Amino acid sequence: MRLRFHYPAQFAARIERQGDINMRLTVLILLCGLFLVPASPAQQETPSLMPLPASLQMGSGQLAIDPSFTVSLSGPPDARLERAVHRFLEQLRRQTGMVALDMKTVHEAGELAIQIDGVAREIPELGEDESYSLIVTSNGATLRAPTTLGAMHGLQTFLQLVRITPQGFATPAVSIQDKPRFPWRGLMIDSGRHFMPLDMIRRNLDGMEAVKLNVLHWHLSENQGFRVESKKFPKLQEMGSDGLFYTQAEIRDIIAYAADRGIRVMPEFDMPGHSTAWFVGYPELASAPGPYEIERHWGVFDPAMDPTKESTYKFLDTFIAEMAGLFPDKYFHIGGDEVNGKQWDGNPQIQQFLRTHNIKDNADLQAQFNTRVQKIVSKYGKLMMGWDEILRPDLPKNIVVQSWRGQESLADAVKQGYSGILSSGYYIDLMQPAASHYAVDPLSGAAASLSPEEQKRILGGETTMWAEWVSPENVDSRIWPRTAAIAERFWSPQSVTDVDSMYERMEVESRRLDWLDLTHNSSYLVMLRRMVGSDDIAALKTLADVSETVKGYSREELSPFPPTSLSPMNRLPDAVRVESMTARQFSLLTDQIVSGKMKLGTEVRIRSLLLRWRDNPIDLEPAAMRSSLVKEFMPLAHDLSALGSAGLQALDYLDRGERAPEDWKTEQLAMLEKIKKPTSQLELAVLPAIQKLVEAAANQPPVTP
Amino acid sequence: MRLRFHYPAQFAARIERQGDINMRLTVLILLCGLFLVPASPAQQETPSLMPLPASLQMGSGQLAIDPSFTVSLSGPPDARLERAVHRFLEQLRRQTGMVALDMKTVHEAGELAIQIDGVAREIPELGEDESYSLIVTSNGATLRAPTTLGAMHGLQTFLQLVRITPQGFATPAVSIQDKPRFPWRGLMIDSGRHFMPLDMIRRNLDGMEAVKLNVLHWHLSENQGFRVESKKFPKLQEMGSDGLFYTQAEIRDIIAYAADRGIRVMPEFDMPGHSTAWFVGYPELASAPGPYEIERHWGVFDPAMDPTKESTYKFLDTFIAEMAGLFPDKYFHIGGDEVNGKQWDGNPQIQQFLRTHNIKDNADLQAQFNTRVQKIVSKYGKLMMGWDEILRPDLPKNIVVQSWRGQESLADAVKQGYSGILSSGYYIDLMQPAASHYAVDPLSGAAASLSPEEQKRILGGETTMWAEWVSPENVDSRIWPRTAAIAERFWSPQSVTDVDSMYERMEVESRRLDWLDLTHNSSYLVMLRRMVGSDDIAALKTLADVSETVKGYSREELSPFPPTSLSPMNRLPDAVRVESMTARQFSLLTDQIVSGKMKLGTEVRIRSLLLRWRDNPIDLEPAAMRSSLVKEFMPLAHDLSALGSAGLQALDYLDRGERAPEDWKTEQLAMLEKIKKPTSQLELAVLPAIQKLVEAAANQPPVTP
Repeated sequence: MRLRFHYPAQFAARIERQGDINMRLTVLILLCGLFLVPASPAQQETPSLMPLPASLQMGSGQLAIDPSFTVSLSGPPDARLERAVHRFLEQLRRQTGMVALDMKTVHEAGELAIQIDGVAREIPELGEDESYSLIVTSNGATLRAPTTLGAMHGLQTFLQLVRITPQGFATPAVSIQDKPRFPWRGLMIDSGRHFMPLDMIRRNLDGMEAVKLNVLHWHLSENQGFRVESKKFPKLQEMGSDGLFYTQAEIRDIIAYAADRGIRVMPEFDMPGHSTAWFVGYPELASAPGPYEIERHWGVFDPAMDPTKESTYKFLDTFIAEMAGLFPDKYFHIGGDEVNGKQWDGNPQIQQFLRTHNIKDNADLQAQFNTRVQKIVSKYGKLMMGWDEILRPDLPKNIVVQSWRGQESLADAVKQGYSGILSSGYYIDLMQPAASHYAVDPLSGAAASLSPEEQKRILGGETTMWAEWVSPENVDSRIWPRTAAIAERFWSPQSVTDVDSMYERMEVESRRLDWLDLTHNSSYLVMLRRMVGSDDIAALKTLADVSETVKGYSREELSPFPPTSLSPMNRLPDAVRVESMTARQFSLLTDQIVSGKMKLGTEVRIRSLLLRWRDNPIDLEPAAMRSSLVKEFMPLAHDLSALGSAGLQALDYLDRGERAPEDWKTEQLAMLEKIKKPTSQLELAVLPAIQKLVEAAANQPPVTP
Repeated sequence: MRLRFHYPAQFAARIERQGDINMRLTVLILLCGLFLVPASPAQQETPSLMPLPASLQMGSGQLAIDPSFTVSLSGPPDARLERAVHRFLEQLRRQTGMVALDMKTVHEAGELAIQIDGVAREIPELGEDESYSLIVTSNGATLRAPTTLGAMHGLQTFLQLVRITPQGFATPAVSIQDKPRFPWRGLMIDSGRHFMPLDMIRRNLDGMEAVKLNVLHWHLSENQGFRVESKKFPKLQEMGSDGLFYTQAEIRDIIAYAADRGIRVMPEFDMPGHSTAWFVGYPELASAPGPYEIERHWGVFDPAMDPTKESTYKFLDTFIAEMAGLFPDKYFHIGGDEVNGKQWDGNPQIQQFLRTHNIKDNADLQAQFNTRVQKIVSKYGKLMMGWDEILRPDLPKNIVVQSWRGQESLADAVKQGYSGILSSGYYIDLMQPAASHYAVDPLSGAAASLSPEEQKRILGGETTMWAEWVSPENVDSRIWPRTAAIAERFWSPQSVTDVDSMYERMEVESRRLDWLDLTHNSSYLVMLRRMVGSDDIAALKTLADVSETVKGYSREELSPFPPTSLSPMNRLPDAVRVESMTARQFSLLTDQIVSGKMKLGTEVRIRSLLLRWRDNPIDLEPAAMRSSLVKEFMPLAHDLSALGSAGLQALDYLDRGERAPEDWKTEQLAMLEKIKKPTSQLELAVLPAIQKLVEAAANQPPVTP
């Protein structure tokens, strides 16, 4: 921001020449309207890293990155690390725009010298040493790590250090000692509800590597689709996937791709519920006769496997054997969530089974099912994992519980001797702001009072990208950049909690992730252009920039049509960013006004935005007349206009030092209350800041005459 | 534009409320500054197609495209057409954002019913029937074609018809009869100078299909690299490519990918010159002893094959046999251009050979070489093609000449009975505006006076993307969208020549090509962000939007460093668009002023741009202080500022109806003359329009007192 303060001074000279003081506001608005983005991080003293390392000291000077940059490797030969260095150089070329082929690996004394003590296993495992140290001076950089994994993390840190400077591309001199806080740092991708193409999986693995996540939890079967080729039971994919599934060769490719990035791939096959898609090809597995169709709607459904038939376990034994061979990871996730029990209640044979075996309720029946499945999973060399619901005292202690219900639930499991990971608080499909996820710590809440021994059994956490409301086009924008902030929670010291710093660094990382072809930024404009039907998206973008899709679980009930897995995903709620950065910036600006600690330029920026909002319906009307996809959101544009007007009026009162009349305040607050209700599944994220302005205007001390 | 005219009227009401007439300009500038883009084509009566079809009649009404849209196929079974329909539906889903799986192929009575009479060969050949008819009514669409190829073209036309309307996505009712004017419509991609990854080739084949081009001419060997795996002579790629080459499997994949899009793939192996990369592994082929290294510089170099040694022809026989087997196309391009003869002159044995065989000069020697090579090419079932230079009377008439020297040269060849295609005028690497290419017709100039029989031997044309100044990152932006305009020249009737219409439709097509993952639009912002090192690119974009890289062959001499194939490609001249659309729009606006036919809003828009340009150095300074990649262009920003000031002053004179003083005019024209000289390889494309304003201000009739 520092440099911006030159504008008014330099501008004043021009004003004098023009002899028109009113032009001053004109040009100020023009200038400032363009600069809502925060000052560039390149001005910061410390580099913008995410996740922040365990320890970082700044040195003096910087290491130039030029087209002749070289890397050398020492220690035992390590093909995976060589591939990682190859990708690192590709990425460095891409970030810097240097096509230079002589940016390469050399035998010794590279400008970046990497040294590892030992080679990690090709397929990563839970709990491996991931630490590294990275020392950069103006003469060169040294990256040391006990194994491959730490070296790969260090390469990602190095990439984050590179930035443009007055002397060209360079990394600042730093000394970093780093290691993760938790060994399990995951992202769950739901390929069941909406199929996610291989490209999407790959680019998200690249993103995970960049922020040091190390588990892809792959949710592969759902009511809406069974997504893996089974050679033993081919009707699973043939009848249960609409043709949208991964072949075993593709799965193996992804596993290798992930392993090359230090990432484990854990499959989830949800059972006994969430399994309608299995029953399309194999109705005999279900607890009611069928026939079944692939489910198109969202929610919890009745179909569940029949836990009372031996044939079910025979099927699962063969199936799990096949999948245990396909997926090398030690952990095997059986889901186990949200069984409503209705098919069991309605099936006389199952009811008879309960009586015969003295099983008291459906929860007990499911527990028995889990015990049987656990034995199968164990037989094929795997450790079983499941959602909270699987937790019953009769399961062995080596299973892992994934908690979606809350920190209490996780603490309970841990107290009973189980291991677990936290996902409650990291449900990124619920469209909550990054700060709310960032505030959740796997060892806070109920976990804070656990013994150190117990705390160790909390292995980490996972963000969950449930896929009701995402398509391959917009899914990246629901994962990123918030997942980078959560990755920091899993990696960095517990003391790293500064939210402003997080947002600043998250935005930098967000742009860096663009270099990996993630589409979280690029898809936004693409979708707006589709809605408008041309390039002329300025007005729609003004509206979209301050709109947020409704949060939590209310989206379905607010949908203008019954949403299914076949619904178009081309509306504004599908396109807008999860978290409005414009609203965040605007709120910081209005806070200055309200607190009386205003900076030069603040009011001009605020007025510029308010004017644009007030005029949004007029600006948007031409597009609305041409496009049904814009027209739907004209009421929202009118709401935004009302907010703009209220803000302008409030500012005028504040400017004049005139306390706003009580009835004005009442009228504005009533309007705000009305607008708080979502419109077309969208909320205007600037509303709270406008409300603050209105209240500030109305709460000024009355002017003494 | 029509709807824009509401603004001032509606705004006037607000002005009155505010009681501040000076705010009027403020807000007008704010509003208008955002709307430099032309009115959306959705407002046009006729759809925006490119290339324009041979015949088009508009019907009434439109065909809705909803998630249940279906396609049916009739006629003989055709796997390639089925794949094309599959891709068509994918593309339709993508353009509309409908994830709908029930948008699909049905057995009969699809909303789009396709009927073909016969199946075209899997691998396309020159001269096949590519015609089709497409009739769309509000009840459905019918696409008829003699073969697969026409049906595939019709599908692309249909995709261009789809747009958003007040009733959702739809295609207008039309009746189209269409066929190409020329059978050879090509794009040449030079993978030799800078290697182009497979992704780049694939997405450009998608782009070619969209605009109905049908030949990928693949320039595969150069001084700077040999790019195809040879199993017979593996040192070609092992030593001549820096590891950057296509395997034979990859080549086969690309050929199949192209064939699926109705596109032939013709390889070019340039010989006997442009061949340094061959000699790194096989120095014995050359006319001087070597050793050789891959060439890093640009230009015409001495190394050339030795045409006097039998071993050369033995090598070429084996090599051409291998490549003729790999590439199924009937045509085989041997280059043959730009042999400077220096190695021949300096080799005593070659000189002796000339004397012994009574060969008069190097051109004759090359002719003899070509004759030998032609026999080899012919022996393996291919027709030889080459650049102008190959044309010598002793070659058989079935060779094809590609003219880079000009229309005279092509007409000469045709008169001698040869066939030919035109590339002169379509050198897109020279950074000329689309209009200049669009004005070149293969049958104009010297070709216009040929007999109809002779004209038939002009088979079409090819755009040529020579790769000195492109990387995989910016190459799309040098190919597109101009190649869409040239494709129209090759496809549409000769009478289609309206330049304004071309630009309007080209910009629409440019955005449509984004759906194919072409990066011509997206890479621009990405590269600007890299230069600035943050998101805050507004000031740099203002400068970049009006800058054009120097045209023609002057770029190398103006380079701040000796350019090589290893040079970074991250500077502003690498990023800016070939043709400034801002400059084009600005010029249309200033023409209104100069001609006195001004529309409402014009002056406000002009002033808004001029203000921004005048202030560009101040706005850009913060980025320049942080980034070497921005700093270099501050002198250009100062030039732009001078243009902005001159334009504002000229407008002031015009506003006041006051003739500008003679010495002001002299001063301004001197400044303009100075700025005409390129700065850092860039030119300011708004200069001519500013000059017009300056002259208009100075040429007003003096006010009579």
